[in-house]
Amino acid sequence: MAKDFSSREENYAQWYNDLVIKADLAENSAVRGCMVIKPYGYAIWERMQAALDQMFKDTGHVNAYFPLFIPKSFFSKEASHVEGFAKECAVVTHYRLKNSPDGKGVIVDPEAKLEEELIIRPTSETIIWDTYRNWIQSYRDLPVLVNQWANVVRWEMRTRLFLRTAEFLWQEGHTAHATEQEAVEEALTILDVYTRFAEEWLAMPVLRGVKSPNERFAGAVETYCIEGLMQDGKALQAGTSHFLGQNFAKAFDVKFLSRENKLEYVWATSWGVSTRLVGALIMTHSDDHGLVIPPKLAPYQVVIIPIYKNTDQLAAISEKAESIKKELTAKGIRVKYDHRDTHKPGWKFNEYEFKGVPVRIAIGPRDLENNTVEVARRDTLEKEVLQAVNLDVKIGNLLEQIQSNLYEKALSFRENNTFKVDSWEEFKEKIEEGGFLLAHWDGTSETEEKIKEETKATIRTIPLDGPLEPGKCIYSGKPSPKRVVFARAY
Amino acid sequence: MAKDFSSREENYAQWYNDLVIKADLAENSAVRGCMVIKPYGYAIWERMQAALDQMFKDTGHVNAYFPLFIPKSFFSKEASHVEGFAKECAVVTHYRLKNSPDGKGVIVDPEAKLEEELIIRPTSETIIWDTYRNWIQSYRDLPVLVNQWANVVRWEMRTRLFLRTAEFLWQEGHTAHATEQEAVEEALTILDVYTRFAEEWLAMPVLRGVKSPNERFAGAVETYCIEGLMQDGKALQAGTSHFLGQNFAKAFDVKFLSRENKLEYVWATSWGVSTRLVGALIMTHSDDHGLVIPPKLAPYQVVIIPIYKNTDQLAAISEKAESIKKELTAKGIRVKYDHRDTHKPGWKFNEYEFKGVPVRIAIGPRDLENNTVEVARRDTLEKEVLQAVNLDVKIGNLLEQIQSNLYEKALSFRENNTFKVDSWEEFKEKIEEGGFLLAHWDGTSETEEKIKEETKATIRTIPLDGPLEPGKCIYSGKPSPKRVVFARAY
Repeated sequence: MAKDFSSREENYAQWYNDLVIKADLAENSAVRGCMVIKPYGYAIWERMQAALDQMFKDTGHVNAYFPLFIPKSFFSKEASHVEGFAKECAVVTHYRLKNSPDGKGVIVDPEAKLEEELIIRPTSETIIWDTYRNWIQSYRDLPVLVNQWANVVRWEMRTRLFLRTAEFLWQEGHTAHATEQEAVEEALTILDVYTRFAEEWLAMPVLRGVKSPNERFAGAVETYCIEGLMQDGKALQAGTSHFLGQNFAKAFDVKFLSRENKLEYVWATSWGVSTRLVGALIMTHSDDHGLVIPPKLAPYQVVIIPIYKNTDQLAAISEKAESIKKELTAKGIRVKYDHRDTHKPGWKFNEYEFKGVPVRIAIGPRDLENNTVEVARRDTLEKEVLQAVNLDVKIGNLLEQIQSNLYEKALSFRENNTFKVDSWEEFKEKIEEGGFLLAHWDGTSETEEKIKEETKATIRTIPLDGPLEPGKCIYSGKPSPKRVVFARAY
Repeated sequence: MAKDFSSREENYAQWYNDLVIKADLAENSAVRGCMVIKPYGYAIWERMQAALDQMFKDTGHVNAYFPLFIPKSFFSKEASHVEGFAKECAVVTHYRLKNSPDGKGVIVDPEAKLEEELIIRPTSETIIWDTYRNWIQSYRDLPVLVNQWANVVRWEMRTRLFLRTAEFLWQEGHTAHATEQEAVEEALTILDVYTRFAEEWLAMPVLRGVKSPNERFAGAVETYCIEGLMQDGKALQAGTSHFLGQNFAKAFDVKFLSRENKLEYVWATSWGVSTRLVGALIMTHSDDHGLVIPPKLAPYQVVIIPIYKNTDQLAAISEKAESIKKELTAKGIRVKYDHRDTHKPGWKFNEYEFKGVPVRIAIGPRDLENNTVEVARRDTLEKEVLQAVNLDVKIGNLLEQIQSNLYEKALSFRENNTFKVDSWEEFKEKIEEGGFLLAHWDGTSETEEKIKEETKATIRTIPLDGPLEPGKCIYSGKPSPKRVVFARAY
């Protein structure tokens, strides 16, 4: 299996696509631009969901569910939002089919036309703020800290599995606050949650910052984001958290009576991450041998494979394997024992290496004699023979090591591919090699657009923590208060 | 709050609707027939999901995700399926909006018409079996045991919160098997899961059986179901598990090479339960004081309310309350301590009674002196004063008692409202009072339809475990092998 796919060097895009399909993560469906998330891919997403959901709850949020459909007129209520979103979306115009008069199949019943078309949500600010109008009357009703796990649809022309699909799964938080300060703090709290999730769970280092106005969410006052650097030197926006000001409150007339007994518009945030993170995970860690999944998100963290010549040997090894499985499971480690007799050990080795299982334990007859096991780690491909004593502790530690090694490796990669650039010539040259370019920018949209036109690079983020080191814009030569991060992006 | 809503006696339908809205479970949205599931209602659904998901996994199933959209032509492929489903559904015809020429809002771009319309899934057999064709080649690829958590849309004309909405949330399992026997066994395994879930979690006794051909799922060979009896004497279908034979395999050409090296069509099941179960939960247990939620599904199982005259008292009570909360939480009990100073204890008592929190603990100054607490249970409304010692065990036991008391109460209700009926006159009379009527039926669709026309009663289920007691059809007088269950239904 692992033989039959491109290397990263040959063709990174093809390598990515091969990996997603051959590792059974997802595939294209019969519907243009929509993917099927297969069980192995979905299991990774489920683990992401569980971790994020707990983090949201730990920071005071609750889940709710809002309609899939949004009346068309809602989109016109927030001016910049409609520009950003209402264009490429799926429109429901009818609510009934009927048998075709020619007896072949079904046709849309022209008499069942909706008075007002419904849009499949591309994001839910409008329908949610229309709802919040009834939920919020007084400061006592605030804050509203709601998250939704849902599917959304954006009619993308060019799609790629996980990275950009017409339908995708995500979470979208929508919060309402009495003050501007509280809303900004909420947006930053979530930026912090996303950062911790990316670094601690995906083992993906990210830059934190704000978007330039050009890259801001349609309807936001400020968009905070986390950005990762993929192995091919392209940036990937991994999560965004928006301070929406009072834009949606004004568009949907959501006011509250303040402590001071004044009627005021409510302050808002929204924030989301999506199944795109599965793509980020793949492009941060995987290699030419296949997937590499950080232990915390791996559906199976350990696979045990028996090596045997006859059924007597298998029986003896199985006894040992089951006891190890039990020992590890008791420690919360996710273990699969693959004793199928339909495949040879070598095939299984390849299979689980390809699928990125962090740790492989092989047990053969000699291991039984010596009370040992052979342990291989996926990240470094190193093998060692261990005494089969205290395996729960040893394997538990190994999984932690792998998790942090993956992070460190990705961090070095990013550091080795982040460059300070001080001239336009250097910029144009460096951008071809990929990576994050730290460069001065004059703060205007015009310059940003010119740079994008000439190099396909965009400002990925204006770092929150970056030093205030004044300089001159690489493009216009005008003054700049600090460096921003440029890259080509997914 | 509890004052301002209908009693069950006055108007059961109104009582139900008032309860759902005033207890903050759900509300109607701006989109006809679609509801907003509010955080308190969603928390109940989340607990249902978690319990069911674990049960599915324990029986060998994995989750996956398939597209929201189904190409229109797919619906024509399975003849009876199209009759049952393709009629009332949301149809996507366009994929873009544009600015209106008059400058007001947005309109559908006529140039962005889809070549083939897309249907929002009312259920996913067709898109999933179209996918399975590529997944299944050999008996080694079987069984496929997949479940999906998703939203679906059926364009219902008359909708009711949770019970019947245009969009609803559900899980749909879709399995593929090498043999007929294995597929039937799977359908029955799931029927068993649903039965245990209804009885052990919802505390709702259910009848298990098969549907008559009239009530069968469109495309199924056999539909197994669980049916509950609501307080108003109407039946509610709470879950269905379908043996689909080879119908979808034939429609989508899904064949496999058997162990005997023959090319055969795959056998299938599908099964689902939905947010309708929240409605079932309400109509099984709640009363004129408000919601009653079985402890296993309650977002909060215990609420602690301080009774105090001044802030010193509150401080002392809070210390005690927090320590009790900690003690209970350590045992896995979900506790809320409501020390808000914006509401009086009496208001809080009403509020949590109305919201169905199973156990209320009140602590006043005298309780501190005596080391006691006042414990009230929601199911019986009984109160008692307990020594504040070993509360984790006492409250844990009480929650178990409440859970089983609710089940027993619902079971007695069902038993008291299940009647053997042997004549048509008696049937017509009894059906007006509600309940399950056990009656003989001649097995024909014509008779079933006649009975439905004349009494609005349908065959809810043909019991799997019922005794083979021959008799004569109450309507036609023709011979019948055993009694079936009639009722009016939701």
